[in-house]
Order: sequence, then structure tokens, then C-alpha cells
Amino acid sequence: MQAVGIVVEYNPFHNGHLHHVKEAKRTTRSEIAVAVMSGQFLQRGEPALVDKWHRTKMALASGVDLVIELPYVFSTAQATGFASGAVQLLEAIQCTTLAFGSEQGSIEPFLNSYHLIENNRVHYNEIIKENIQLGKSYPQALFSAYEQLKQLFPNAYIDLAQPNNILGFHYVEAIKRLQCTMQPATIQRIAAGYHDSINVDSEIASATGIRQALFSGQSLQQIFQYLPDGTIGQLEHWQTEHRNFASWESFWPLLKYAILRHTPQQLKQYADVSEGLENSLVKYAAASSSYTAFMNALKSKRYTWTRLQRMLTHIYTGVTKEQLHAYSNPRYIRILGMTNSGQQYVSRIKKSLSLPLISRVAAVEDPLLAIDLRATQMYQLGIQQFSDKKIDEDYKTPPIRY
Amino acid sequence: MQAVGIVVEYNPFHNGHLHHVKEAKRTTRSEIAVAVMSGQFLQRGEPALVDKWHRTKMALASGVDLVIELPYVFSTAQATGFASGAVQLLEAIQCTTLAFGSEQGSIEPFLNSYHLIENNRVHYNEIIKENIQLGKSYPQALFSAYEQLKQLFPNAYIDLAQPNNILGFHYVEAIKRLQCTMQPATIQRIAAGYHDSINVDSEIASATGIRQALFSGQSLQQIFQYLPDGTIGQLEHWQTEHRNFASWESFWPLLKYAILRHTPQQLKQYADVSEGLENSLVKYAAASSSYTAFMNALKSKRYTWTRLQRMLTHIYTGVTKEQLHAYSNPRYIRILGMTNSGQQYVSRIKKSLSLPLISRVAAVEDPLLAIDLRATQMYQLGIQQFSDKKIDEDYKTPPIRY
Repeated sequence: MQAVGIVVEYNPFHNGHLHHVKEAKRTTRSEIAVAVMSGQFLQRGEPALVDKWHRTKMALASGVDLVIELPYVFSTAQATGFASGAVQLLEAIQCTTLAFGSEQGSIEPFLNSYHLIENNRVHYNEIIKENIQLGKSYPQALFSAYEQLKQLFPNAYIDLAQPNNILGFHYVEAIKRLQCTMQPATIQRIAAGYHDSINVDSEIASATGIRQALFSGQSLQQIFQYLPDGTIGQLEHWQTEHRNFASWESFWPLLKYAILRHTPQQLKQYADVSEGLENSLVKYAAASSSYTAFMNALKSKRYTWTRLQRMLTHIYTGVTKEQLHAYSNPRYIRILGMTNSGQQYVSRIKKSLSLPLISRVAAVEDPLLAIDLRATQMYQLGIQQFSDKKIDEDYKTPPIRY
Repeated sequence: MQAVGIVVEYNPFHNGHLHHVKEAKRTTRSEIAVAVMSGQFLQRGEPALVDKWHRTKMALASGVDLVIELPYVFSTAQATGFASGAVQLLEAIQCTTLAFGSEQGSIEPFLNSYHLIENNRVHYNEIIKENIQLGKSYPQALFSAYEQLKQLFPNAYIDLAQPNNILGFHYVEAIKRLQCTMQPATIQRIAAGYHDSINVDSEIASATGIRQALFSGQSLQQIFQYLPDGTIGQLEHWQTEHRNFASWESFWPLLKYAILRHTPQQLKQYADVSEGLENSLVKYAAASSSYTAFMNALKSKRYTWTRLQRMLTHIYTGVTKEQLHAYSNPRYIRILGMTNSGQQYVSRIKKSLSLPLISRVAAVEDPLLAIDLRATQMYQLGIQQFSDKKIDEDYKTPPIRY
């Protein structure tokens, strides 16, 4: 029983994801697809549209056999930390391959780019230094050092200006650095032209596009063609239960309260609050009546939207810099859900696992898990808009069986 | 122009308060009554029914000439700190007398009790120690030491089992210890039988009774007889603007979020969170769907309701132990409102004041004032139930002129 690992957010699961899962299984000849999926808060520093259980069900309905949770400290980290956490979990659950999406669908350029930097680390760091002295920002300096190295050793490399390639690069880097048994592979993204049973023109939309449609008030009927049935069912169920999809806009009253409960000095205990941002946070939170107004006031050339949102995520959940950086490796494998095949796979490997397997969290005490439980409570408080429901879903929800 | 000082919460201002102001002025032959009034959060550890500006207007409409704010660090402190802050402010604003209410209306027993303890401090402390060794709680040990001292030196003393007497005792104590020019005086409480133009049976109800009536859904019409017209007007205005009166029940969603945003260990940064309460707070907050349910779960013989509520107030506002205890003396006099007479009084004394006078806070930077401003923001977020109003009232509200 061979397993292929994929790293996902499924916000929400759409036809492009469906294609990726199928192709990952087919091209790697795996019977099992294991998804390591972000919990309630995502890498762009946002609450997920619907919670991790609804997203798990979408995945299990569409070809994923086992969903394990990427803990908060990795799911909200920058690319390096995000990739490292995900890779370690997929290696721990004994996947043979990690299959990520890319535009060109070939793994060699990723390996070439990795070796280019790794083999010329000293030189690379020198060029970065020079670039910074020339006044470039750190990301600019990195990119430009990479471009210079490429010219010294001509070969087929990836374009690191593309966000998907950056993540792929970090998966490859993590696999190599951690000396994983698991091998990297890449699946050509369907938006780039390749397709199986899906009509690209009429059946593929990005998750971003789908979220925009939902938040602009379009009904599920209007976007059903982009979504597998399993996703439609879960989104309908969520709407019935919660009316609104989760967004920073609906979490704003609590986020505003959280910010204003601190002095600027106190806000510095959270990751990424630095360089005077603490004063702007307090000033603009008091004056803003919506999240959009707040972000527009806060945004400047200096910071990316994503960096600001990750900072706000940590303020919202109350996870401090110290907590966030206390552990840099996964400490457990938490199963969010599985199909019958997924369960068979788990039964087969569970005695030889290097990390403890968690299916019910109530009995486990672990500092990383405690952060996930709190993230879920904070997510539920944001979603419930102060209904009187109990917020103990993480305690009472066993792995989903599909 | 002689001024009498009074220490008040006016939650809300009722006919008993009206009697007290009149009598304070009459018996001390003062033209001016200065009230030092708690801001948004009160000594019982609760948000005030209506905000400090509405309560200031009630006071100015009913005989008070000048209202100054008792800062948060004193208004939410135990009796000693509460009394010390209030006494220092009334002394600073140059009141000749501090007139507090008591059952018997005579100041001598208060002075006798003060001297009894002060002159026998060593002995008193020894008896307290013995009592604690016998297994009594600290308040019990204090009370019992006092009773034993009384028997050694028979005289007319106050009954320290009565809450009003405890506050009065602490005013006298603060006046003596701080060597104030201001003299203590006491006005017999009207509920005890003394009355002026007020019909005790039909026109006096306690603030507690009035709040209970309002929260149980009684209309202002049903309780108008207990309230001066000035109070009715302000309560009506508040209801029109905010629908509900402020209470922990309506602040509960935010309080719950604030508690659950912390680990038990992190909660210890707030005053009175100790002895395992940090664990109970997190446990019961997650499980409770209302403030009442939460408090009933949290309450034990070990702690008084008031002590628990003060702790919750600090968690709600985010004011840490360290902030709360950084300054033990007032640092400014903030005017919340004044009548024409009050203004004349201020003009006459303002050049000889020992503390800076603040009428508009926007331009002032002070650590104690910063706490008051935050307390107001937190109060407004609780009240507004997430309307889109700006929460800058403390910045934009100048002293009220009546």
C-alpha cells in the first residue's frame, strides 16, 4: 500500500484540487493519498472559509484517503516553516512521494535550483549581502542573488517569481535537508492547460476566485460548476449552520477588542509586531469600523498584506512569539478524517510510526496541540457571533470516517 | 467658597444620593459639593450601568457642582486603595470636609475606631497573627482582632461588620495617614430613618434595588419615584442610544474571548488571578454560555463575588498587575463636569493646585490616564455590541457644563 502526500488548505476544495489528487495517485502509482491540511488559520494569515472538519469531509469525498492536521505554528508560518512542518508530517506518516503542483510539471528544475543554491551557499550569501548594501529589500536581494547564480551555472531552473514555485522549492529543500526517505514529485497544474476529465474553461476557478464569488453574495448555484459535489454539500451545510462564511470582516469586532486590550508595548509579544507597527495597530483599530478600513489604514509599501495578516492572526488567537517559536518540529500526527482505505493504511503503519498518533485530543497534553485547540476556540468564537453554543468542538470531534 | 467632598459611584444617582448631597452641603455649610466619581468600572468589579458622562449629568442635575473622575486603578481597588485615591483627590481639589454616609451619623465612633487600631498597632497585628494561626481567614482575623481590642479599651466604636462603615473607616484612616487638611464628617443615611423632604417609605430604594428592577425588565415609569428627574432623563437618553444597560451579561462574549485567548499561565499577569483560579477560569469560560452560568461555576467559599468580579474586570480591560500597582497616588485631577458654581470654584483654586488639572485628555500623556482611556474603550466595545461607532469618547468629550 503506497501513499502519496500532498500539502493543502482546501479553502475550499475545488475541481483543480480534484485533478491534483487524482493525478498525484495516478502518476506515483499510489493507492492512498494523504493530505496534510492547515487547520482553522491559513498561510495567508486568514481564518478558513469553513472549519477544518467541513474541509476534511470535502477532501474525503473527492479522493483523499487520510487528512492530517498541519498544526497552527506551521500553517501560519512563512514558506520555510510551513514547508518544513508539512514535509515532516508526510514523512512521519510514511508517504513514498510528496506531490506538489507546479506550472511546468517537471521536478528537475526544482532539484536544479535547490542544488544551485545549496552548492553555492557561501557565494549566494555574499551576493545577498551586497544587494542589501545596495539598498534592496531582503526578498529582492534573495531573488536577485538567485538570478545572478543562475547565470553562472546555466541549466533548467524554476522561476522563483511564481508563488507556487516558491512553495515547491521549499518542499524540495525541506525533503533534502531533513534527509527524507520520501521523494519529491510535481503535478502540472490544470490551469496551465493539462486536464483529465475536467473542462478547464468551464470547470476550473481558483480558490481565491471562488471565495470572492461567495463573499460578493453569489449563491452556491452560481459557482457549482467549479466545485465537486462533496464540496457543495459541505458549503451548504455550513451555510445552514452558520449563515456566513468565516472572514476577517466577521471576526473584526473581536480582533478590534483584542488589539485595543493591549498597550502598544504589550502588542510586541506577538510575532511580526515590530518597527512601530504596535502604535499603528492601536491607533487604526480605535478609528476603524471594519476590517477593510483597518487594513487599508495599516497597509504600507513596507509590508505585504500577507505579513500583516499573519501578525493579526497571532494577535487574534493570542499566540505569542515565544509560544510560536518554542517548537520547530511536529510532535504528533493528528488525524482529522479518513476513508476505509485510509483507515486500513493507518492500521498497517501505526506500530512503526515515529510520532504519536492522535485521534481524540481530550486526553492529550501537548504544548503544540494546546495551540491548535485554542486556535479552534478562537475560530469558533469568531464564527458563532456570540451564540450560546459551547466551543468544545476540538474536544468532542473524533476523526471523521468517510 | 467652601467645598465639601463626597465619594460616589452613582450607579445610578437616586433620591438617597440627593439627600446625601443636600445634607453634606447644609451640615458643613459648603456652597460647593465636589464628587469624586468612579469611571466606567466600579468597586464591586462591574461595569457601570451607564457611562461616566451620563452619570455626571445626573449628578450635576441634582446638586453636585463639580464631578472629578476616580481613576480606574482606584475605582476597582479594595477599600484601602479606593479610599486613599478618593481622599487624595478631594484633598487636592481643596475640599474642607469629606462627608460620607453612615448609619448613625456621628463621626466620633469612626475616629475612636481609627485611634484604637492606630495606637495599638503592634498588639493588633499580634492578635491578627494569632487568629490566622488558629485557622481564621484574613478578613475574619482582622475583624476578630478589632473586637478583642474594643474590649480592652471600652468606648463608642463603629460596627465594622457593616460595609458602609468599612468604607467610612478607610476614608478616616486615609485622611489621618495622609495628614490631610480636609476633615472627615458623616451624614446619617436616609434609609436609617432620617429624612428631609423625602418620603423614606415611598421614595428611597437602593442603587442595587434599582439596577435589579431595570435588569428584570421594569420600565423607568415603574421606578421613577426613587429617582430624581435628572436621573430619569439620562437613563431614558441611554436607553434610546444603547437599548441595554451595561452589565457583565452583555459584556460576556468579549470577556469569554479575553479569557480563552490566554493560557492559564498567562492569566496570572492579572491582579487576583492566583491559587489555581487561572485553570478554573479557562475551564469554565469554555463551558459557559452566559456570565451567570460562568460565575456560578467559578464561585466557591474561598472567594467573595466581589473579589472574583474585580479579577474579571482586569482581565476584561487587559490591565495587568504590574500596571495596576505601578502608581499608588493620583497624578492629575480630571474634570468630568461642572455647574456654573463648580466652574467658579475651579477658577478660584486652579492656580494653587498640587496636581495638574485635566479637562481635555487628548493632549495629555500619562500612564494612569492611559489606563482610564483604555477602560473607556473597553467599556464602549462592550456596550456597542459591535456597532460601527468610533470608540473615542474619552478623547472627544470635554467637561460637561451644566
